[in-house]
Amino acid sequence: MSYQYLLTLCLILASTKVLSIATGRLQLPQVVGSLLAGLLLGPAVFGIIQPNDLLNQLAELGVIVIMFSAGMGTNIQDLKASGKSGFLVALCGVLVPLGLGTVLMYAFTGGELSSGGPRVLQGLFLGTVLTATSVSITVETLREIGKLTTKAGNTILAAALIDDVLGLVCLTLVTSMAGGDADIVMVLVKIVLFFVFAGVMAFATHKFYVWYDHRVKDRNLHRFPVSAFVLCLFMAWAAEEVSGVADIIGAFAAGLIISASPKGSYIQSKFSPLSYLLLTPIFFANIGIKVTLPHLDGVVLLFTVLLVAAAILSKIIGCGLGAKICGFQRRQCLQIGCGMACRGEVALIVANKGAAMGLVSEELFGPIIIMVVCCAIFTPIMLKAAFKGEGVYDNMESSSLVDDYERSRRLDFVAASLLRHDKEMMKPKTDKKA
Amino acid sequence: MSYQYLLTLCLILASTKVLSIATGRLQLPQVVGSLLAGLLLGPAVFGIIQPNDLLNQLAELGVIVIMFSAGMGTNIQDLKASGKSGFLVALCGVLVPLGLGTVLMYAFTGGELSSGGPRVLQGLFLGTVLTATSVSITVETLREIGKLTTKAGNTILAAALIDDVLGLVCLTLVTSMAGGDADIVMVLVKIVLFFVFAGVMAFATHKFYVWYDHRVKDRNLHRFPVSAFVLCLFMAWAAEEVSGVADIIGAFAAGLIISASPKGSYIQSKFSPLSYLLLTPIFFANIGIKVTLPHLDGVVLLFTVLLVAAAILSKIIGCGLGAKICGFQRRQCLQIGCGMACRGEVALIVANKGAAMGLVSEELFGPIIIMVVCCAIFTPIMLKAAFKGEGVYDNMESSSLVDDYERSRRLDFVAASLLRHDKEMMKPKTDKKA
Repeated sequence: MSYQYLLTLCLILASTKVLSIATGRLQLPQVVGSLLAGLLLGPAVFGIIQPNDLLNQLAELGVIVIMFSAGMGTNIQDLKASGKSGFLVALCGVLVPLGLGTVLMYAFTGGELSSGGPRVLQGLFLGTVLTATSVSITVETLREIGKLTTKAGNTILAAALIDDVLGLVCLTLVTSMAGGDADIVMVLVKIVLFFVFAGVMAFATHKFYVWYDHRVKDRNLHRFPVSAFVLCLFMAWAAEEVSGVADIIGAFAAGLIISASPKGSYIQSKFSPLSYLLLTPIFFANIGIKVTLPHLDGVVLLFTVLLVAAAILSKIIGCGLGAKICGFQRRQCLQIGCGMACRGEVALIVANKGAAMGLVSEELFGPIIIMVVCCAIFTPIMLKAAFKGEGVYDNMESSSLVDDYERSRRLDFVAASLLRHDKEMMKPKTDKKA
Repeated sequence: MSYQYLLTLCLILASTKVLSIATGRLQLPQVVGSLLAGLLLGPAVFGIIQPNDLLNQLAELGVIVIMFSAGMGTNIQDLKASGKSGFLVALCGVLVPLGLGTVLMYAFTGGELSSGGPRVLQGLFLGTVLTATSVSITVETLREIGKLTTKAGNTILAAALIDDVLGLVCLTLVTSMAGGDADIVMVLVKIVLFFVFAGVMAFATHKFYVWYDHRVKDRNLHRFPVSAFVLCLFMAWAAEEVSGVADIIGAFAAGLIISASPKGSYIQSKFSPLSYLLLTPIFFANIGIKVTLPHLDGVVLLFTVLLVAAAILSKIIGCGLGAKICGFQRRQCLQIGCGMACRGEVALIVANKGAAMGLVSEELFGPIIIMVVCCAIFTPIMLKAAFKGEGVYDNMESSSLVDDYERSRRLDFVAASLLRHDKEMMKPKTDKKA
């Protein structure tokens, strides 16, 4: 019986918190603080904590709970309301990074950065890593320069909402393809079956909760979050083991189901402490702990530089193209493209999933982390330059999307707020039944 | 990468919840439902879940969080106010079971129920298992027959409060003695050093929280529970690895420190979901999963019967004796003794600790669980018999202890409420700083 795990958890919680606060003050995403904590504690630097089974398992459970919370926080009404321009910007802003990432990785497979899996799948996974935008830094920058309520700002918020869902669709396709079925028809059949299964679960769960909510009144409230967690774990398991879709997709789907049920916001509020007190810091710190610093040879350096360039340019080109199609002016297209260039927690979640499936080499985590940090540094600079000298002529009176942002709880937003341990960001929605 | 753990956790959460509700309806403690869930899922019956590292680790972390929550819920003012009679009843009610348990185990060591550790320590550990009263069933019974506000009822509540603390003192002594130091002086020095360390931590933590509370105002509230958990993990680790005192004692001490700090009740409320959504059900179910059913031979049967008898009689004799010294009438002594006879969650926590230290054989869990169930069945019957035919002549007008009970959050009470997943039993204390 060893008690070392107590000290390990203590060090992880303390260091992720202190370093997250520090990186937050430097205007960097707080996830960088948690990654740094893991890097420092892990074998890459001081070697105080070695990768171990307990941390890996808690991290796995952590990402399930993060995705479940993200699902509970996704407002399907907001998605529907985000309009055609948001959808087109998001779609082009997903396809171009996916393509560019795939090509980049494909070119480098065979070297030390390769995981040894099928070459196309390795490429597609890196492409998927590049799809999801993290919009929080953009929002802070736009607010700082007073441009959040411009038409460009509004389009960025709308596109970032849809962006997450499209990124998850990519992940679903790629993980299903990696499941061993060479036959693309079988892959699609399995995905369709998963969505049918999710639909049936959604119907049954909704019926059950409406009946149960009516039956138990205000007694026994704890039963709601417990049964929701049972649903989440079951759907995550079924997604992975039965359908060959990723476990985190199952957890996200369970979250969507819960968000539509009575007591959805009560349930959501109870998962917040479970995450920020234990699972989320461990998930991100564990990524840092598992990082193997590659020999800084020319190839790795070149790959890292190209990855950063691909990440930023693909979003500027993709989203800018989408905006152009929608009739935005050239300057606005650039503004939208720069605003969508930031990556964050979701990139790491996808990369982590790829590593678990043997399609993302652990040597890639170093470059991916550098990419996340560089995007976070460059986005505000580019964004301010793109808006420079512009008047306030197209500022709108008000924007429901901006109003909703504070409680929008997008995927990266939920992950970030769980990490931040700070404000009660996940404010409960107005409970329809309460 | 295996995803089986998702299904395992799903089954444990679902079955502990359903069976806890079922045993609750049968007037049995809900912990019995969780144990039963573990027994059914584990190798003892259906063998769906095998004992594994993840469950053991989560269970270890679970008992740390349970004891931390219990510490946060212990109201030191209530302890001071419980008076001389409460203290004497508790003291005799701890010493007699400790002695009788020690003798019983000592007599049986060498057989299949022995863990192979030092004979006296094995005895003392079983004695310690028998010390802590679980008072919730008694309170429900007394309320049912309208005797909760009698002098006997009040003394039971007071004694049960102190009972927990004395039981933890026993556990501290026994685990320290088992730490390898044959020298009793060294054992005492280490315990004293631990209390000095706890005192220093209490002083430093209190100063820090008062300063920090003043500094952060209402922003960044999540930092309070996170830093509290860091303190808990550090003290649990230091207690075990540095002082040779049990980790759960360190966690309990950290809880006491937090309960006295500003934001203590806020912090406490955030640990409730962490426990009931994951760690507490796993802790109790895992005890059931680990149970090895011994061959039901004559020796085991005899031991089980004697254990049940020792558990009930030792409390009736011990607490009755304490009450007699305080000048209670003979009938009241019997009432108090019967009221203190129930055991619950704490007995299992102590036994689990003993198993981790190699001093409680895992074969003993079967008999201990049967003891807990039998005490829960017999206590209400004996109690009703002891009060039968008595008028309402000594009912007091009101009792602060009874009033406080609903929010008294004693050790077994906290563990039970964490397990129950039902009502929001751990109502926040009035926050002095709020």
